[in-house]
Amino acid sequence: MKIDGKAYKTIWFENNKVKIIDQTKLPHQFVIKDLKTVKDAINAIKIMEVRGAPLIGATAAYGLVLSIIEKMIYLSKEIQRGTNRIKTTAINLKWAVDRMMKKLSGVNDKKDILKIALDEAKTITEEDEKFCKYIGLNGLKIIEEIANKKKDTVNILTHCNAGWLATIDWGTATSPIYHAHQKGIKVHVWVDETRPRNQGANLTSYELNEEGISNTVITDNAGGILMQRGQVDMCIVGTDRTLSNGDVCNKIGTYLKALSAKDNNVPFYVALPSSTIDWSIKDHRQIPIEERNSEELSHIEGIDENNEIKKVRIYPQKSKSLNLAFDVTPAKLVTGLITEKGICEASEKGLKELFK
Amino acid sequence: MKIDGKAYKTIWFENNKVKIIDQTKLPHQFVIKDLKTVKDAINAIKIMEVRGAPLIGATAAYGLVLSIIEKMIYLSKEIQRGTNRIKTTAINLKWAVDRMMKKLSGVNDKKDILKIALDEAKTITEEDEKFCKYIGLNGLKIIEEIANKKKDTVNILTHCNAGWLATIDWGTATSPIYHAHQKGIKVHVWVDETRPRNQGANLTSYELNEEGISNTVITDNAGGILMQRGQVDMCIVGTDRTLSNGDVCNKIGTYLKALSAKDNNVPFYVALPSSTIDWSIKDHRQIPIEERNSEELSHIEGIDENNEIKKVRIYPQKSKSLNLAFDVTPAKLVTGLITEKGICEASEKGLKELFK
Repeated sequence: MKIDGKAYKTIWFENNKVKIIDQTKLPHQFVIKDLKTVKDAINAIKIMEVRGAPLIGATAAYGLVLSIIEKMIYLSKEIQRGTNRIKTTAINLKWAVDRMMKKLSGVNDKKDILKIALDEAKTITEEDEKFCKYIGLNGLKIIEEIANKKKDTVNILTHCNAGWLATIDWGTATSPIYHAHQKGIKVHVWVDETRPRNQGANLTSYELNEEGISNTVITDNAGGILMQRGQVDMCIVGTDRTLSNGDVCNKIGTYLKALSAKDNNVPFYVALPSSTIDWSIKDHRQIPIEERNSEELSHIEGIDENNEIKKVRIYPQKSKSLNLAFDVTPAKLVTGLITEKGICEASEKGLKELFK
Repeated sequence: MKIDGKAYKTIWFENNKVKIIDQTKLPHQFVIKDLKTVKDAINAIKIMEVRGAPLIGATAAYGLVLSIIEKMIYLSKEIQRGTNRIKTTAINLKWAVDRMMKKLSGVNDKKDILKIALDEAKTITEEDEKFCKYIGLNGLKIIEEIANKKKDTVNILTHCNAGWLATIDWGTATSPIYHAHQKGIKVHVWVDETRPRNQGANLTSYELNEEGISNTVITDNAGGILMQRGQVDMCIVGTDRTLSNGDVCNKIGTYLKALSAKDNNVPFYVALPSSTIDWSIKDHRQIPIEERNSEELSHIEGIDENNEIKKVRIYPQKSKSLNLAFDVTPAKLVTGLITEKGICEASEKGLKELFK
């Protein structure tokens, strides 16, 4: 997708370095950053220079490539230790590392190993891009149906950023929106700002602006009244981990929107590539829910009157705060899962029919 | 209640002026401001130097007193015109003005009129204080019951500020909490920050800190997962307008928390003085929902590294935003209404039994 009229992907390999868009700098600055070492890659995930389940997976895969370049030896343990240290809710991290490891296991020729690793990392990113495109084409049908019935702009609510910035290209939740827009269907997106890190405002609204798609930022509190008033035709969100029973773990606040959608008969869809499905955990209480630094709540960065980036404390000095990053939307609240293979019911039956 | 160890009320009359705590300056500065004219009073409501349904009512009553002092004539039309211009969801504004007008109607003696107006404004504030105290004593029973059963700290979630800063003293939602604390019951409050104006963090957490009550600020997104994990024993919120059928119009986001409370079997209470009941409207869609300046979303004020107050823009420059201030929590989601006369079911029957 485009930034300032020029097409980008979120991650690519160039001159033995991994290039990323530093997403902690958006929307105030657009900075392309080099990752030169596996530590850079792990750190980029940790401090959210890259974020979004699919992009985290791709960064981990390229991190492994960097570990090989760095020392020209097979550092499976190092990257596994490194990625294990990141308490991430996104299943894709483990998924990508496991996939790379499987490909590399038994390769002993030091010359081959870099080529094989790089090929596999590229395949992972290319696959994600393709899957996101298919998610878009599958989700497009739902938007088309609403547009045909309504004969007016389709209002879509989304939470956090499951946009192209969270993947390699297209995005998950946004892919059907981009496809609808390209097909000439009138869409308008309600973008939850998504506190505390405001990925909705900073990333989703930003990327929709750059693609010329009409959108309005709202507080995370606002979805309810908009749905009560009939101003939301459908919701689409992404997911960091989808359980085989259809429960969806996504950015904190998703659950509240799903409850409101159910209460107001608004269809609530979750868009995901199959890499985000966790087939192993049966009970959502086993999902590790990241607790992040509480300064992400009490402090915020913005542009001051001199056009300079300033960080300010917004809470009373004495106040404590708690920063949980995810919640779980039970399958009963999900109208359907939009995947690369089609749309299915959020249930074990639905997922198995598509994927097993 | 106390600020820095000293007891305050939110509004009082002194030397022919009305004194208020300028709540737009909290928590970074504590400033007492003089309202000298009816325009000052109307403006204070408009720009939220005073806020909270009961305090808005009291300020309107004192505004009328100021209009009499100002010109020594009976300016009923002026204050009615002025207050009509404020599109407020809080029913108390109209309630207080109507009450003052009724008291003053037929009073022709210019000497008497100021005394009568001042007495009535004082009665309104004293009544509110008394009612908030009774709300506290009634709500205390619920907290006591949970504490007796749980034999551990009672975790209470609240939204926005329905604290003493929203009333004259005690608060509505916070009054049971203050009474429980004074009785030695261990309570901990989850404070929704309450975007966009963060009255939860800026006012509720601030006032709880000053009273030494344990509290943790969370994003508006976080209540759901906390309830899913059993970390919330009850919710108490305030209201700007309660319909006779028990529907509750309160700060935007309240509805989402009520949905989550229902889904997780967490009791959800609304605390209100009877002045907040709107007996006239039968359908919540008739409630005017304030749409405020969208800059309240895109810009935020905080303390920078030099300890100076700075306003920064936090959204992308091209992004539009929408700022609706209230939503409606249907009666079906409300466990009970805590009023000065007792606790009742959120229904016409419940309210009529207590009040008619």
